[in-house]
Amino acid sequence: MSEPSAPVTLAVDCMGGDHGLSTTLPACARFLQRHPDVKLLLVGQPEAVSAGWSRLKEAAAIPAERVRIVPASEVVSMEDPVEIALRKKKDSSMRVAIAQVKEGQAQAAVSAGNTGALMAIARYVLKTVEGIDRPAIATQMPNAKGAATTVLDLGANVDCTPEHLLQFAIMGSALVSVLKDNPRPSVGLLNIGEEAIKGSETIKKAAELLGAAGERGDINFYGNVEGNDIFKGTTDIVVCDGFVGNVALKASEGLASMIASFLKEEFSRGVFSKVAAVLSYPVLSALKKRLDHRRYNGAALLGLRGLVFKSHGSADALAFGYALESAYDAARHQLLARVEQRIQACVMPSPGAVA
Amino acid sequence: MSEPSAPVTLAVDCMGGDHGLSTTLPACARFLQRHPDVKLLLVGQPEAVSAGWSRLKEAAAIPAERVRIVPASEVVSMEDPVEIALRKKKDSSMRVAIAQVKEGQAQAAVSAGNTGALMAIARYVLKTVEGIDRPAIATQMPNAKGAATTVLDLGANVDCTPEHLLQFAIMGSALVSVLKDNPRPSVGLLNIGEEAIKGSETIKKAAELLGAAGERGDINFYGNVEGNDIFKGTTDIVVCDGFVGNVALKASEGLASMIASFLKEEFSRGVFSKVAAVLSYPVLSALKKRLDHRRYNGAALLGLRGLVFKSHGSADALAFGYALESAYDAARHQLLARVEQRIQACVMPSPGAVA
Repeated sequence: MSEPSAPVTLAVDCMGGDHGLSTTLPACARFLQRHPDVKLLLVGQPEAVSAGWSRLKEAAAIPAERVRIVPASEVVSMEDPVEIALRKKKDSSMRVAIAQVKEGQAQAAVSAGNTGALMAIARYVLKTVEGIDRPAIATQMPNAKGAATTVLDLGANVDCTPEHLLQFAIMGSALVSVLKDNPRPSVGLLNIGEEAIKGSETIKKAAELLGAAGERGDINFYGNVEGNDIFKGTTDIVVCDGFVGNVALKASEGLASMIASFLKEEFSRGVFSKVAAVLSYPVLSALKKRLDHRRYNGAALLGLRGLVFKSHGSADALAFGYALESAYDAARHQLLARVEQRIQACVMPSPGAVA
Repeated sequence: MSEPSAPVTLAVDCMGGDHGLSTTLPACARFLQRHPDVKLLLVGQPEAVSAGWSRLKEAAAIPAERVRIVPASEVVSMEDPVEIALRKKKDSSMRVAIAQVKEGQAQAAVSAGNTGALMAIARYVLKTVEGIDRPAIATQMPNAKGAATTVLDLGANVDCTPEHLLQFAIMGSALVSVLKDNPRPSVGLLNIGEEAIKGSETIKKAAELLGAAGERGDINFYGNVEGNDIFKGTTDIVVCDGFVGNVALKASEGLASMIASFLKEEFSRGVFSKVAAVLSYPVLSALKKRLDHRRYNGAALLGLRGLVFKSHGSADALAFGYALESAYDAARHQLLARVEQRIQACVMPSPGAVA
């Protein structure tokens, strides 16, 4: 894929997430050092952002013209209900960051703030692309092929219709074709394997819709997959309801944490194990890296008329940096235009498209 | 818990699963050696079972009176649709094994055959306990506390109502209180964590029902849990829809396999890593054991008027042996009577209970 040369500007919600400025600003400084073509809009309470940034920018030797502080007087907390975030905090850093995208000041916004609020505000401010009823959250999970499987939806939508699942398949295909330079990524529909009880009515209907879209060439539909196929890497993309996707993601994170703690504990039990741990260091650190969910941080909100990326709320500076990288990749490869093109090119049976 | 002394008889579907007799018979022989108080009914095509068993029984020195071959002329294949298994194969080993329980010849049946067929036949032959609309499949998953979390449903039921989820909570509580000697096991309702989009209407309603049951003392309700809590061991029991449970289980199996392959590959890369692997052997084999899903084989079908245990279709003899152990534990601790007592003692808002 050719490297676009236009500079990229990202709007960063500096106040969001569990740690706010203490995480977002150091991540921004390192990100600016890595990418000389990038400008950042640091959105947040101006005194706090300014105080934090002035210390960092000198240490990192970042020219003043590459950063602009955009004031926002309010903060959406991790606990704020969507209604409060959307209706009462109209000058929140989250909303102002998204507004930068809407106004063309930035190509993408990044926030570690609460997902429900982020999705609601992004949808309200940016609106959905024509043909898409509901935006989805897409993330990547490491697979046995040494690559990553893109899974969507991750929790934005519960109770999906078959049409929504088809929309997710199309948006996911656009995302992967752009970011992975893979023109025909394969799509699996997440289902359960037992013969008689194979999926709900929704899944059966979705399989028909995805099959028809595959025959038309709108997507490269593989068929049904099961939970283990996410990690096998059977398909490039796995499509599911947000409830199911969220549970699969969190269960996997829980298992990975359990294994990491187990290894740490066992390898520090006695001198012999400690020696083994030292010798095993290259393998264990490769495993840790492979499973480190911080490397997969930066979920895309797809289906909106603007690019928004969501970081884990608990992200540290390293993880937040990966979310910035995802937004940067998407912006410089014109993900938005390419998702829209792909959606317009597809036959969408959604009621939203008809209306 | 006191050790009941009455002998236990189990009916084994020897033909079921991917491997049939070559797996089930050796597992039966070892199981009989481990437990001198057990008798087995080996159900299957009599010539084949008899030929296989005659070789094993001598090597294992098992007295003839501890085993009886019960003839069944048909086999339910892993691919058979439920309708075929239920209506056309009335003399299948699966059905005959379950009929042994119905007729009081055995206290529990064990099969590695296809889950959909097993559930349908068990339900048809045994019927459900009063107050239970749908049987559920419960299994155990290892947790960070070094114990196991009991998760149900694992795929018998998609599209559950809130009342079904309450029934699962009550049945799971009975199972754990009997098998783990834990009179008040805690119950979590599997949900997703985001504030605004917290679960579907079904889950919200289920949380109310489970909360009310907790207040009445019918269950020890903890509240909502997320996917990672299964492996944290936050609660003794996690209740969910069969679709979600199946995906969570299979995704976890997929991740565990990926990690195992990764370690194997990395530790065999070069001489240095091989030395590290040898020194790390105790830790790695402890990890392998901890994650080995064969040790958790043997899912309980709950809510039926008889005990039925389901082995993984792909189980080897070791794994099938664990399924036999589960059935044995359940039978000797009178699981059936205790589940029924617990259900009768609860206030069940199910339409099934009213009818």
